[in-house]
Amino acid sequence: MPEKHYSKHKETLKKAREVIATREYWSPYPESPRAYGEDAPAAGEAAFEDRLGKRFTIDQAADYWSPGTEASPYGRDLGITYPVTEVDALLTAAQTAGEEWGRAPVKHRTGVCLEILHRLSRNSFEMAHAVMQTTGQSFLMAFQAGGPHALDRGLEAVVYAHEALTLLPKTTRWEKPQGTRDPVVVNKTWRIRPAGIAATLGVSTFPTWNGYPGIFASLVTGNPVIVKPHPATILPLAIFVETARQVLADAGFDPNVVQLAVDTAEAPIAKHLVMDPRVKLIDYTGGSAFGDWLEKNATHAEVFTEKAGVNSVIIDSATDLKGVFRNLSVSMTMYGGQMCTTPQNVFVPRTGIEVGGEPVGYDEVVAGFAGAIDGLLSDDDRASDILGAIKDAASLERLNAAASGHQVLLESREVKNVRFPEAVVRTPVIVAVDGADKDTYMREMFGPVIYVVATDSTEQSLDLATEATLRHGALTWLVYSTDPAVQERAEDAAVAAGVSVAFNLTGGLFVNQSAAFSDFHATGANPAGNSSLTDPAFIAKRFRVVGVRKPA
Amino acid sequence: MPEKHYSKHKETLKKAREVIATREYWSPYPESPRAYGEDAPAAGEAAFEDRLGKRFTIDQAADYWSPGTEASPYGRDLGITYPVTEVDALLTAAQTAGEEWGRAPVKHRTGVCLEILHRLSRNSFEMAHAVMQTTGQSFLMAFQAGGPHALDRGLEAVVYAHEALTLLPKTTRWEKPQGTRDPVVVNKTWRIRPAGIAATLGVSTFPTWNGYPGIFASLVTGNPVIVKPHPATILPLAIFVETARQVLADAGFDPNVVQLAVDTAEAPIAKHLVMDPRVKLIDYTGGSAFGDWLEKNATHAEVFTEKAGVNSVIIDSATDLKGVFRNLSVSMTMYGGQMCTTPQNVFVPRTGIEVGGEPVGYDEVVAGFAGAIDGLLSDDDRASDILGAIKDAASLERLNAAASGHQVLLESREVKNVRFPEAVVRTPVIVAVDGADKDTYMREMFGPVIYVVATDSTEQSLDLATEATLRHGALTWLVYSTDPAVQERAEDAAVAAGVSVAFNLTGGLFVNQSAAFSDFHATGANPAGNSSLTDPAFIAKRFRVVGVRKPA
Repeated sequence: MPEKHYSKHKETLKKAREVIATREYWSPYPESPRAYGEDAPAAGEAAFEDRLGKRFTIDQAADYWSPGTEASPYGRDLGITYPVTEVDALLTAAQTAGEEWGRAPVKHRTGVCLEILHRLSRNSFEMAHAVMQTTGQSFLMAFQAGGPHALDRGLEAVVYAHEALTLLPKTTRWEKPQGTRDPVVVNKTWRIRPAGIAATLGVSTFPTWNGYPGIFASLVTGNPVIVKPHPATILPLAIFVETARQVLADAGFDPNVVQLAVDTAEAPIAKHLVMDPRVKLIDYTGGSAFGDWLEKNATHAEVFTEKAGVNSVIIDSATDLKGVFRNLSVSMTMYGGQMCTTPQNVFVPRTGIEVGGEPVGYDEVVAGFAGAIDGLLSDDDRASDILGAIKDAASLERLNAAASGHQVLLESREVKNVRFPEAVVRTPVIVAVDGADKDTYMREMFGPVIYVVATDSTEQSLDLATEATLRHGALTWLVYSTDPAVQERAEDAAVAAGVSVAFNLTGGLFVNQSAAFSDFHATGANPAGNSSLTDPAFIAKRFRVVGVRKPA
Repeated sequence: MPEKHYSKHKETLKKAREVIATREYWSPYPESPRAYGEDAPAAGEAAFEDRLGKRFTIDQAADYWSPGTEASPYGRDLGITYPVTEVDALLTAAQTAGEEWGRAPVKHRTGVCLEILHRLSRNSFEMAHAVMQTTGQSFLMAFQAGGPHALDRGLEAVVYAHEALTLLPKTTRWEKPQGTRDPVVVNKTWRIRPAGIAATLGVSTFPTWNGYPGIFASLVTGNPVIVKPHPATILPLAIFVETARQVLADAGFDPNVVQLAVDTAEAPIAKHLVMDPRVKLIDYTGGSAFGDWLEKNATHAEVFTEKAGVNSVIIDSATDLKGVFRNLSVSMTMYGGQMCTTPQNVFVPRTGIEVGGEPVGYDEVVAGFAGAIDGLLSDDDRASDILGAIKDAASLERLNAAASGHQVLLESREVKNVRFPEAVVRTPVIVAVDGADKDTYMREMFGPVIYVVATDSTEQSLDLATEATLRHGALTWLVYSTDPAVQERAEDAAVAAGVSVAFNLTGGLFVNQSAAFSDFHATGANPAGNSSLTDPAFIAKRFRVVGVRKPA
């Protein structure tokens, strides 16, 4: 059966191998909802609705059932309770299940993982509702980022892991000449040794997109995975676990290769889980405090983190200022600034900028920017589609506190979501600050908070963006400049700060978006995270090679 | 110039690329001293002698000169003093030199590294004397392990690093279809971002063999390297630094890309150096205590360790018992047990073993083993050639204490080295212990100490070897068995313990030897070290990729 899965998805794997080398556009899982057939939307929604107010029954030993406190940012009471298994039982079961999984041929593990992705893909509508209702994303974002784009990232991890495991020949006849004497001849084989138990600590905003890469990287390299969703966003990863366990069981493997670990904000289990010496791989996406703690303290394991950051836009000059604002207004408001890639700070020289060779004053730039955002979000229905809902009460608190004592360029306003009247929807506040006021803007204000930072020059803008990146991390820089010298200087600054950079985006590509098989998500080179999704370094230490030598 | 170096050594690189995939035998640097021409031996020796009693003058800022306390295990007073540069000055100079180096094209850095290896190869006789006189190795081992085999390992790191850096295309045109609208088109480039300053902490026994992989891996990936030799074994890595700086300067680079950091046992600088936040890569070979400390504490850097271990031989059955003893007697006495790959514990069932289908009692096996070692080392000249000299006073202390309270199967004896009468040369002591006496044999007794461990069965032998490996680490297992079921069980145990395993070596291949391009040295999967020389994981985190996106 796992062999059959491998054959079935062989072409997908082959194409993925090609594309991670060319980095060209490719996505095997359609991002258009229309591609899934006429019945899919209703069936997916019905499947989601059918989960509500019930036990999430999977074939995993349940010591008790979780309290079902997962609430939707759209105001719905999901009322789903999950099986809770004690940490030690999870670890013991993972170890047992991991033995056969770790010994299975690479093709079998790869085949099973490809089939999991395939089945998840067929289920993208249900997943979209699960992601939407737990994260507060708009439906379309939840569909794309929670479904096909997350699956792309998962497949990317599968193919990188498969590459890493198939670098060595099955056997080698090693023959060393000895002059006139007989050569020394040894037959060598290499055995893959998985690292051990992997734990994935899920994030509340993009649980599948950020979770799949580590999960699939660990699985293909032979490690059993314990998936601990964020206590406020359980359902999407629970659906993943359910699907994975079904495919594993169908293929004759112990389903405990993938297990669900559910906890609550009041009684978190993450530390207990990851500090167990049997856990050798930890994938974490979330706040910096816990990520930093993991990097420093979980030295018995390989730790892969994606944390928080302060992303920057640097405006130096442009040909199409309207295009600049059009692009920025979308990228900075999409999902209410709750993407780790959303720009937060917009650096603009006090002396103004050049547009098509003509000077445009600071005030005009700033007014144009604020106006573009105001315009984009003026209609409540459109604003709801763009902003989604605010996931975390802390984001609302930050929003409410951000303006205090500062010049406000655009007030935040409440938006009414007609379909979900309880949803907490806010347009961003835009605050003007001086470059010197680092305490205000040089910190992560996750959520709908935008700072426009007045600087002495583009040079200073780059210096401040660099400082913010080195101190607090960053996932993205976006630079607007028509001057090749400035572009070169900005690119070098981005490399030094270890942050990916985009230039002059005015069309339909937004800096927040990172595409599987092409863009690396995070660099691993600044405090926003110690690793990149998905590159060879994300795979390399998830397994080891044991050499076996026998005389020929 | 660096381009020229690349072209000059292109074929070497190409062949190395092929061989890391096939894992077949290959060595571009001849291991036979005769291959270097008639004049090479005398010229090399003269060059070495010319170093003695002098300042080791290189073009590196010297704050003062080291005291010249480096003494030879062969009893010579080398009297070489080295330039000492303050740690902060080293770091500042590394940072400055690293900027251009990190921006240089991969080909240029690769070319420079290949040329360094080439020039070191031409100098293999001088290096042999330097390694011999600082480590206590015999001349032939010092020549091979200090020269060509170390260069093989260096080249292996160069080619793995080169592979890792050339996975991505130079640029990609990324074109995403948008249905009936124009596609989104972006030009993407990828910039390599070196991790930062690399520090190599050298080992006293195989300074070049264990040092080159990390050094060259860091250099090719764009990082400046500070080389801190073990204070008791400075000269070999000082010669490396001298050569590297010459090639760098000739190629137009700042020679501070490679710097020498000299300290003394009394005033060590290692912690000060590696805990500086500018240091992002640490390569360490040496004792477990400091290696464990680095893994736990240097969390600001990537740490690659090769530490100590307890290696095991498991004797279950054989067809050629004489061959077993012949092979073991060499592998266990070579360089007086001062290789990290030397077996220490020989597990033999109390009930005896089977040889060619006939039972052979425990006493007979043990007597045969001790007799083989006694016979091999009976002649002082031959014993001197095999044993080398004892490097560290602590090894002598361990040797003297090892027999106390135990049954001695073979006493250690002093061997006279005719050429170097002051050399401290000892044959190993062979001590018989019971499997239950774990406190005695389940600890590293680096140096000429061998334990024969009586067990209830081969099953117990494997369990005890596993326990020793999981608790104290191991680099090698050597299993003698003619029974396929035992071989399978032993191979699985080795994989579970994360240690490479060889079977039934009776000929000219010794378990201590690990061949570049074919054998991985260490697995990284047990306490003997967190990494392997040289595999993709040894390279992956030495650099990052920064993506740059521009609209097409």
